[in-house]
Amino acid sequence: MRAAIFRNGDIVVDTLPAPKPARGQVLVKTLACGICGTDLHARQHAAKFAELSSRIPGREPVDLTRDIVFGHEYCCEILDYGPGTDRTLKVGTQVCSVPRLLVGETVGGIGYSNTNIGGYGEQMLLSEPLLIPVPNGLQPALAALTEPLAVGVHAVEKARVNGDEVPLVIGCGPVGLAVIAALKRKKALLPQLGPIIAADFSPKRRDLAVKMGADIVIDPAGTSPYETWGSLARLPEDKPSGASIVSRLIEAKPSFKQALFFECVGVPGMIQKMFEGAPRDARVVVVGVCMETDRQEPMLGIFKELNLQYVLAYTPTEFARALHIIAEGQVDAGALITDKVGLDGVKGAFEALANPEQQTKIIVEPWR
Amino acid sequence: MRAAIFRNGDIVVDTLPAPKPARGQVLVKTLACGICGTDLHARQHAAKFAELSSRIPGREPVDLTRDIVFGHEYCCEILDYGPGTDRTLKVGTQVCSVPRLLVGETVGGIGYSNTNIGGYGEQMLLSEPLLIPVPNGLQPALAALTEPLAVGVHAVEKARVNGDEVPLVIGCGPVGLAVIAALKRKKALLPQLGPIIAADFSPKRRDLAVKMGADIVIDPAGTSPYETWGSLARLPEDKPSGASIVSRLIEAKPSFKQALFFECVGVPGMIQKMFEGAPRDARVVVVGVCMETDRQEPMLGIFKELNLQYVLAYTPTEFARALHIIAEGQVDAGALITDKVGLDGVKGAFEALANPEQQTKIIVEPWR
Repeated sequence: MRAAIFRNGDIVVDTLPAPKPARGQVLVKTLACGICGTDLHARQHAAKFAELSSRIPGREPVDLTRDIVFGHEYCCEILDYGPGTDRTLKVGTQVCSVPRLLVGETVGGIGYSNTNIGGYGEQMLLSEPLLIPVPNGLQPALAALTEPLAVGVHAVEKARVNGDEVPLVIGCGPVGLAVIAALKRKKALLPQLGPIIAADFSPKRRDLAVKMGADIVIDPAGTSPYETWGSLARLPEDKPSGASIVSRLIEAKPSFKQALFFECVGVPGMIQKMFEGAPRDARVVVVGVCMETDRQEPMLGIFKELNLQYVLAYTPTEFARALHIIAEGQVDAGALITDKVGLDGVKGAFEALANPEQQTKIIVEPWR
Repeated sequence: MRAAIFRNGDIVVDTLPAPKPARGQVLVKTLACGICGTDLHARQHAAKFAELSSRIPGREPVDLTRDIVFGHEYCCEILDYGPGTDRTLKVGTQVCSVPRLLVGETVGGIGYSNTNIGGYGEQMLLSEPLLIPVPNGLQPALAALTEPLAVGVHAVEKARVNGDEVPLVIGCGPVGLAVIAALKRKKALLPQLGPIIAADFSPKRRDLAVKMGADIVIDPAGTSPYETWGSLARLPEDKPSGASIVSRLIEAKPSFKQALFFECVGVPGMIQKMFEGAPRDARVVVVGVCMETDRQEPMLGIFKELNLQYVLAYTPTEFARALHIIAEGQVDAGALITDKVGLDGVKGAFEALANPEQQTKIIVEPWR
């Protein structure tokens, strides 16, 4: 079978042996697989990615001298079952799954693995207990957006939203857009949440932010997102007087609604910028994946008593919820798809994604 | 009046005009004032401290070319009242107060201020509404420990302790010891909390950690605090099987009790070390005040979904609670005091505090 392979720092299309499902595994045809910004980062910072992932206990180390097939945002069709499977879903059923593969008694990754093939190939293996059937009639390219949307759903869950926050999303790439969509969903349950503010240099991305549910979008080239946040989140102030100063000091009466910032860019210096722009007691959720060493002034965090929550991925429940949000049309997920390519187009797509005006999410269709 | 003054990077004893209480203010005699590690850091990194504090909205900027009288851990005696005061407490009453001074319609700091004199002087000004009378019979030197203990009380409050955590305190200087004492108090309410683990290179500091309530102390020179934490916090594991792997994946069954780490050292590199040693989902509370630029690998935070809570100071309620913890003998606060000096001894005390075997908390008694 054919696959777009990360080999010696490059992306090449080559033939690999077709995978064979082992116990509990399922052979699938990959119908659609999104290209994730993390794939681009992992290619660019391959050695660092491998080094850091080798330092996480329980994480499968990645050997960069051997082939890797990226791709962890997929929708597939069941071709065949391995031994020891229940076969509840018929061959031909379209499925999604979190990118984890049960291998004997262990759990491996899919998409950043030397052994488990990702979605940039014609076929791959999935784990039967993790399959989620795609609701009838949903296009595979849309179902493939489950994974990036789940990242946003998870980030918002981890943010411990209580409804009193004014959220600010910095960066409206696929990650930021997923966070906005998840915040919009949260606002349906907690109507006092918001307004949802989003910032990106790209007009195209700001348009998408509005489509995903942002109430206010900002071009940081002309306007400080933090000043805008402050003007929108400021609480009405008592006229200063001796008594009100004392009561503010003693009761710690806040000047702003709660600050909930999402870092969705993933380059060095962003967290420090947010530390500088944040008000006291802000919560910063780090969703963007920065693979380089970063510098910070801890004193700014201390003076402002900031909270920093790093997030990764999602739970299987959040993943399933993301699929249903798309299937029920609660988010215009299709607006994110800017191109579709076959395996021969993967390398070019990695380059094209550098331009946020042209591209947001490119879907690989390996069968093309 | 005499004071130990931070002047041109040095500590000198000189005479200053006696302060005069303005509206709402109280003139007090300083009975005892602890030397805080932050004073030492502020002296060492004076320019950085001034630069960073000038970048925090609402914070009084510090001008290093002018005199500063440090000292924010004090117990005082009321000498006289300014205009517009209720005078509920008699002249001669011993009081503590959070280091904030109402000046007209604004609130200034005490201890890191060019205008408001701190506790390393014979007299100072306090704000009437912030005074807390010291319970009868408590020695001023012990009452002066209210402020550092309040830092620990606040850090533990900000840590959102639910009782299922195994806490690890890195660094057993006055800040770490206060955190341990506050954790011990929390354990009285949440008995399943713990064990409380503490690490410090100094045998003296480890002895004090036990006195403050640590259940297990570690010398990091010989034993990894993180490995010890892992061995004490590990939950009993199911025998691995296909089914249990799937259920662990789907239900995200944790391998450890919750990790709650307190960074109480305040030098660059500590947070990164904790990121390396932390298990998944650990919460790191940053209590140590690091005044230098720090470097971090955000990827480690991301892979492990860490939470970082920076904390500073305390609320007036936490401050009052700290005083009562000391007054009721719930903590052996006196064990922390290793020396008492007059104003002429302040400069030498700053040097002596570099040796953790000899010194923990030195109390300045300006009247000596």
